[in-house]
Amino acid sequence: MTGSSRIVAISRVDGTQINPTDDTVAVEEPLEIQLVSAGSQGAAAKSISITMRTPGDDVELALGFLYTEGIIDSHKQVVTVCQVGEPDPETGLKNIVRVEIDAAVNLELDRLQRHFYTTSSCGVCGKASLEALRVTGQTSLADQKVKFSAQVLAGLPERIREQQPLFSTTGGLHAAALFGPEGEIIVVREDIGRHNATDKVVGSLLGNDSLPAHGQGLFVSGRASFELMQKALVAGIPLLAAVGAPSSLAVQMAIDFDMTLVGFLRNGKFNIYASPERVAIESSGSGGQ
Amino acid sequence: MTGSSRIVAISRVDGTQINPTDDTVAVEEPLEIQLVSAGSQGAAAKSISITMRTPGDDVELALGFLYTEGIIDSHKQVVTVCQVGEPDPETGLKNIVRVEIDAAVNLELDRLQRHFYTTSSCGVCGKASLEALRVTGQTSLADQKVKFSAQVLAGLPERIREQQPLFSTTGGLHAAALFGPEGEIIVVREDIGRHNATDKVVGSLLGNDSLPAHGQGLFVSGRASFELMQKALVAGIPLLAAVGAPSSLAVQMAIDFDMTLVGFLRNGKFNIYASPERVAIESSGSGGQ
Repeated sequence: MTGSSRIVAISRVDGTQINPTDDTVAVEEPLEIQLVSAGSQGAAAKSISITMRTPGDDVELALGFLYTEGIIDSHKQVVTVCQVGEPDPETGLKNIVRVEIDAAVNLELDRLQRHFYTTSSCGVCGKASLEALRVTGQTSLADQKVKFSAQVLAGLPERIREQQPLFSTTGGLHAAALFGPEGEIIVVREDIGRHNATDKVVGSLLGNDSLPAHGQGLFVSGRASFELMQKALVAGIPLLAAVGAPSSLAVQMAIDFDMTLVGFLRNGKFNIYASPERVAIESSGSGGQ
Repeated sequence: MTGSSRIVAISRVDGTQINPTDDTVAVEEPLEIQLVSAGSQGAAAKSISITMRTPGDDVELALGFLYTEGIIDSHKQVVTVCQVGEPDPETGLKNIVRVEIDAAVNLELDRLQRHFYTTSSCGVCGKASLEALRVTGQTSLADQKVKFSAQVLAGLPERIREQQPLFSTTGGLHAAALFGPEGEIIVVREDIGRHNATDKVVGSLLGNDSLPAHGQGLFVSGRASFELMQKALVAGIPLLAAVGAPSSLAVQMAIDFDMTLVGFLRNGKFNIYASPERVAIESSGSGGQ
């Protein structure tokens, strides 16, 4: 439990009652991701991101981030990964992940930083954000014909909650999970940030050479934003199921790239915002055709 | 309603029933914030941030961001603000806010980008993130003796919900609100991003020359993270009340800077994680001493 959660002294207020007690909170600490090109002895590592994350699975988080941001496209491009830096005086954690990348990988980071948002066509707008994904090589997932039963989807939040040890103690963590069409839970990761939880899942898949994850679905405990959809698309995942609401741009992206988008997945019900053909409604009890 | 929300066609699934219907989703579009130094005719505007936001109050969002990130410390430093760029082909919105800043303001943006996370002492860690706030001139709010009654705090979520028109139609927006000790709701802003909603509130205060907001509290509909606490601190707000859980670093920051941190504010109850002296518990019915 140390590292990912911490006990603090609090006052609990209910009406006119105030009682001292303890509470467990999720740990939030900065993580810096650094890149260095293999063979460039002596070259300084370049900082490309500082994110506030919950410690744990830091290497997966870093590798998943590099993959979903389009900086690497294979685990083979990763030469070494080290967790470095001075240990945090409070937690003892090292908060830098330094990734040595194959010298053949183009590290034009300025380009990378902006390519998900803008193209030359209209500067900054939602349409350009979607076009920019195409420019970077992302294509429709229409060929991915996998089907998920409605019953399996409806039961996901409860089943994944059982595998969220930190949420149950802190009430303060997001979860992301990869699941299969029969409802098999393949990997669950937690983090104080929704994007980080998703990057940890993708980083785990990258480490197992399991990308693209065409035959699976991605569950997220919060809302479905453009950035989460983008991460699912880059990972090749054709269905995203969110407990919360989707945004307009998430819906448009699902339509444009033939991804299935499920939102408001709670209390055994859900909405399908795009590509409903991947959801099989059982006519009576079992099956799904 | 156009601009901030949009109607989409969906399928609603409940058990073995699937029904076509309409749903209203919150709009998510990129907003670019650009800076240009006054008097530097012909100099290119510098892009300092692209954030995914819900359109509306874009100028407040940009100014609030500049203030809470420590780039400006007064409305007087803002010479002009323009919303520019090609109109979005879908929404007709211009998605760039260009801010012309007084030439005397130091725009060392590289320094700014990192100063909230690192100092020289230990590189990247939670303690350094807090120290960095001190380095940039933030001081304890211990002198702010304002008191909020527990009853007022307990009733906030419901009262602010009544002023969230977009949440009620989309279920997908965060809210931030400034409130006074008697429960007066001073300003409410909504956005798909928690940080953006908070920046819109601060930008609104900046425009009214109402900063620092020492005598008020900040309500946020989600969780209390380091970044939200940082924004409250920079705006001089001594109490943050969150519907969700706080993080470890939010708690530590509240302790270090003598801010009151309320979490899990829901169903008429809440927890106090730091500086409970600003919360007045009524012994019987009314008052609060």
